[in-house]
Amino acid sequence: MKILVIGGGGFIGSHLVNDMVAAGHVVTALGRRPVPFRPLPPNVGYVSGSLDDRNLMRRLVADSDAVAHLASATVPTTGDKNPVEDVQANLIGTLNLLDAMAETGCDRLLYISSGGTVYGVPQSTPITELHPLAPVCSYGIVKVAIETYLNLYARTSGLRPITIRASNPYGPFQGNLGIQGIIGTYLNRALNHQPIEIWGDGSTIRDFIFVPDLTRLCLTALESNKVGIYNGGTGHGTSIQEIAELVQEATGQKIPVLYRPGRKLDVPISVLDTTKAQTDFGWTPSVSLREGISLTWANLEHENHIFSTAQS
Amino acid sequence: MKILVIGGGGFIGSHLVNDMVAAGHVVTALGRRPVPFRPLPPNVGYVSGSLDDRNLMRRLVADSDAVAHLASATVPTTGDKNPVEDVQANLIGTLNLLDAMAETGCDRLLYISSGGTVYGVPQSTPITELHPLAPVCSYGIVKVAIETYLNLYARTSGLRPITIRASNPYGPFQGNLGIQGIIGTYLNRALNHQPIEIWGDGSTIRDFIFVPDLTRLCLTALESNKVGIYNGGTGHGTSIQEIAELVQEATGQKIPVLYRPGRKLDVPISVLDTTKAQTDFGWTPSVSLREGISLTWANLEHENHIFSTAQS
Repeated sequence: MKILVIGGGGFIGSHLVNDMVAAGHVVTALGRRPVPFRPLPPNVGYVSGSLDDRNLMRRLVADSDAVAHLASATVPTTGDKNPVEDVQANLIGTLNLLDAMAETGCDRLLYISSGGTVYGVPQSTPITELHPLAPVCSYGIVKVAIETYLNLYARTSGLRPITIRASNPYGPFQGNLGIQGIIGTYLNRALNHQPIEIWGDGSTIRDFIFVPDLTRLCLTALESNKVGIYNGGTGHGTSIQEIAELVQEATGQKIPVLYRPGRKLDVPISVLDTTKAQTDFGWTPSVSLREGISLTWANLEHENHIFSTAQS
Repeated sequence: MKILVIGGGGFIGSHLVNDMVAAGHVVTALGRRPVPFRPLPPNVGYVSGSLDDRNLMRRLVADSDAVAHLASATVPTTGDKNPVEDVQANLIGTLNLLDAMAETGCDRLLYISSGGTVYGVPQSTPITELHPLAPVCSYGIVKVAIETYLNLYARTSGLRPITIRASNPYGPFQGNLGIQGIIGTYLNRALNHQPIEIWGDGSTIRDFIFVPDLTRLCLTALESNKVGIYNGGTGHGTSIQEIAELVQEATGQKIPVLYRPGRKLDVPISVLDTTKAQTDFGWTPSVSLREGISLTWANLEHENHIFSTAQS
């Protein structure tokens, strides 16, 4: 297939693009950066642009058999600071994409939603796809609105959307600026011999998924004929305190921990039930958290070594 | 209280403004029209402007003890035609209002949501406030997003929001352009001796509430200390076919009925359970549908008589 990957220059997107190329697809990646944040395979086209650019979207979509939409201009920590911007960039941007797809007849869409925010504070765990949607942050509100619009466009324009509600992905090449992905942030801190921060008492539980496991699910889902919503997690919960310990173990470092006040947008627990994805796609995550953190650390040290060598 | 009524020049808004003035409140009405669509009480200030005007919103909100937000730039039939515009005007506009309230410390907000669209196709009727939210039209998606943002601002900015999910209001001075409110449309057609249209087979069931009953609930809710969400309906369902018959009865006319294909945005049934409002506010609707349609017809004939007399 000819696939347009929106957000293809980002963390999850760049892994997904690699999977797609390996599976023989022809990929164009769209990103906001002038260049992707890490090099893409040589035969992948990269376009720097925005969902707001309606003419660009129509042109790119008209030339594609399917679209994978992973772009988000915000993360949970930044969305609440400016909900207007969050809605403008992510919701209106996505509606521009859906309008472009309706106009050009490109009807297959993979959308990456957020299993960690759309459900809000869970009534029970692990959380199935049928759990009520009650987001407590702007990021999650926008994701819910987008998911609902996908259903609307399915009815009105024949869109065939498949949504993966991802839990907390981590792995090689994750950003480490401290705003997204605690494992990447902690490993980067370890690399720089800096203390790590825990927001709250460390009891907050998340469902961490190794990014290649997640992108394998995404590609399988996109290639299938299914439409609908699937959780993309592991079914296992790990506390932030345990993550801090696993990072110490993987890096072989004793890292000081600074405890900070809890944030209002943090739900206490989020663990996804992935029975539906297992049943429909025969998919299961294959990399344990301990193994995944070790692999991520090895990659980070390797990258750092290349960078240091290039600098010296 | 000094109350800012956004949408105070509209159908529900103008009734609510009258109730507020009668209860001794000092009211400023904000509307998009240069002048309100019908004259407001002489001591009510009317400001023509938009939610998009952040400076205007800040100034108006700073001078108010409470805000009632009834404005919508779309109705269910128009929202789906341009979801981008729907989100831009209604969701971003409302976020501008919430930001203005957070900045100025005005913390009391009455919001009129849509009991007919936020629940989507009901799992059971009458629908309680705990029914899952699954809107099937853009209008409803935006209402759900706004309701969720109200909760977010309650947590982050101390907003005290109270939301009334209105069913289908009808009554004197309803618009009759055929895009909102079937009773107003039918009565106006009867007045002009035109046939009436039924979308689908006439079996679609709605919960029609006489607008003064609804605005009485709205004002009671706003004056209370409650926060949260309340259905505003009657608990009784009436089919469109029955409405057509009641209109014939009230007007004493035999009106031809034209049947049109059903619309995708129409859910087959929507009847609201109003136990919560009855329990918390001792409120019940007081005007039966037959009585309400007769009163609306009498008002329409009266208005038409004044208009005809003025023309001749």
